[in-house]
Amino acid sequence: MKLTIERSHLLKAVDPAAKIIQRRNTIPILNNIRIAAEGGEITVTATDLDIEIRSTAPADVETDGAVTVPADQLVDLVRHLPDGSQIGFTLEHDTRLSMRCGRSQARLPTLPASDYPDIAPGEMTHRFELPGETITALLRDTKFAASTEPTSFICGVHWHQVEGDSGPLLAAVATDGSRMLARRAAALPEGANGLPAITIPTRAVSEIARLVEEEKTDVAIALSETKIRVIIGQTLLTSSLIVGGFPDYERAIPKDTPNEVTVEAAPLLAAMKRVAIIADREHIRATVFSFDDRKLTLTMANQASGDLREEVACDFEGEPFAIGYDHRLLTKLLGAIGGDTVLMRIGGESNPNTIFSSHAGSDMYALLARIKG
Amino acid sequence: MKLTIERSHLLKAVDPAAKIIQRRNTIPILNNIRIAAEGGEITVTATDLDIEIRSTAPADVETDGAVTVPADQLVDLVRHLPDGSQIGFTLEHDTRLSMRCGRSQARLPTLPASDYPDIAPGEMTHRFELPGETITALLRDTKFAASTEPTSFICGVHWHQVEGDSGPLLAAVATDGSRMLARRAAALPEGANGLPAITIPTRAVSEIARLVEEEKTDVAIALSETKIRVIIGQTLLTSSLIVGGFPDYERAIPKDTPNEVTVEAAPLLAAMKRVAIIADREHIRATVFSFDDRKLTLTMANQASGDLREEVACDFEGEPFAIGYDHRLLTKLLGAIGGDTVLMRIGGESNPNTIFSSHAGSDMYALLARIKG
Repeated sequence: MKLTIERSHLLKAVDPAAKIIQRRNTIPILNNIRIAAEGGEITVTATDLDIEIRSTAPADVETDGAVTVPADQLVDLVRHLPDGSQIGFTLEHDTRLSMRCGRSQARLPTLPASDYPDIAPGEMTHRFELPGETITALLRDTKFAASTEPTSFICGVHWHQVEGDSGPLLAAVATDGSRMLARRAAALPEGANGLPAITIPTRAVSEIARLVEEEKTDVAIALSETKIRVIIGQTLLTSSLIVGGFPDYERAIPKDTPNEVTVEAAPLLAAMKRVAIIADREHIRATVFSFDDRKLTLTMANQASGDLREEVACDFEGEPFAIGYDHRLLTKLLGAIGGDTVLMRIGGESNPNTIFSSHAGSDMYALLARIKG
Repeated sequence: MKLTIERSHLLKAVDPAAKIIQRRNTIPILNNIRIAAEGGEITVTATDLDIEIRSTAPADVETDGAVTVPADQLVDLVRHLPDGSQIGFTLEHDTRLSMRCGRSQARLPTLPASDYPDIAPGEMTHRFELPGETITALLRDTKFAASTEPTSFICGVHWHQVEGDSGPLLAAVATDGSRMLARRAAALPEGANGLPAITIPTRAVSEIARLVEEEKTDVAIALSETKIRVIIGQTLLTSSLIVGGFPDYERAIPKDTPNEVTVEAAPLLAAMKRVAIIADREHIRATVFSFDDRKLTLTMANQASGDLREEVACDFEGEPFAIGYDHRLLTKLLGAIGGDTVLMRIGGESNPNTIFSSHAGSDMYALLARIKG
């Protein structure tokens, strides 16, 4: 293998690939990325066995070939070479990859390309395109609600088809059982009709969201019941899907919401932030939300750290009542749903969860259980 | 105690004070800062028993008084209140400090002001002023070379008077025994003549450097053999000094430097950075510097991580030789001495240390021992 490549092209190809390589793999080749040179371009492949990222870049290839080298060393070195420079690679005696750039020379240890694991995507049943903003809305905005327990089968964002008033929609939802974020995207794209309900693992969700944000482009998606493949610009990401069902989350959404209150988002978030200062220090999770005549009062009391009372205007009128929320979770949920106002639809006796959205017609909503204040 | 104060005035007074409060003190009152209100201003005091910071701010004081409250809670709350707002404080039953701002109210736990420790500065023997840039040059630029071993008596920056060609100078030096940074400031300021040789602890050095950078003002200094007091704007910092001698660092400086080499700083630092990428991963400290005809070659070789060779132009002519340096230390030292070029004065057999400076006449230099490559 012998080739010359411009630094910026190389960096753009190796950077996303190297990001999915986990540190300290017990299997040595999983620390490496695969570089294959053929026909005027290189293909860079990286995998952690769950996700595979593959990128191509134009190169001046003198001799075809393929090899694997440590990902972090390669990326760090390329990052520190001068912008606009040309980098020459030569595979020496099939054991060391020499990398020359001006008066710099590195020789990296290699492992054979033929030993590099290959994630076979299998046959894809559905193929469709999504605008960059849509995929961001469906993935990035919901993923924080996913479970972070690595053994949970709900560690990911669930996609499924739902029937809207004017035709089928693509819906994304993430939950860990106590919090939930759900979004319904616009009409189901062409080719997606009848798609299987799938759960995309959180790591793949993060990588896809990051690549989409960097590339700002439309995305081509292919999927089956066990794999998803996403093409973003010059990068192709393949990921396994989480096998096993997703909870019937619709049952957690209260049908009957006797109290509906609208609050301005900015003063509510500012008040919650100040409460959190005192509460977090003492590991207090619950903030009490008391609703009285056009007034929402947040209170938190603690012997050691003092107490705090914050008032925020709201449109509530009726019998005063109080409810406890985990203020840290709620702050994150409100950040995810966005908007200038917060509409709280508070469930009754039969299902005491609260639905949060920016307004009644919003396609994004959060669900949070109450806790004891 | 009862008063009203503008948020920005309060924040400016409590912020530097709160920064020296250590987290998780076993003595509860050391988590607190003292606030005293009297005659149209408040005085905020914080101490960790080694350093004391005292700041004043204008306030509308209705009832005089003093109290201590948890520093981090107070500062975090004040930081999250709206800019430009007025904050009202009332001491309730001598046990809780109520803090009101608009529709926010907090009640902070208190401890009696009379229990707050007081660092008696004792009698000061020397008083002088220094421009902000001079104190930054003397403290911030040298401090990284100080020992970080908390039990070492050289955990600080040493100040002493030296005789220059055109009169007495103030010199600052820091070392941990294997590296050293020294700077000679311009002429000794008025009032400083005959000052005792002192060692300012690293934490006090950092606090003084930070305050000077924020205030960008001249600084008034008073000192004795055991204490230093620095006035920066509205803030007064008092610190204990490190008792015990400072090593006779002049003896570490080679008198005889058979090899003197000048290198451009930017390509040298870029080359060292790339070497560090490979070396740090394998915990290799030494980089070999080989000097040959107008060429400096940096090499690092390792079985596991590959090897690296970097060439940098230099003005060396003579018998080729090689020397090993700890590249991480050297990178930091070169960053501290600054400048576009690096003059290396390499000691001979009797004292093999190397003096680094940006040029021959520089008042700032670094000293580094060689290590085996």
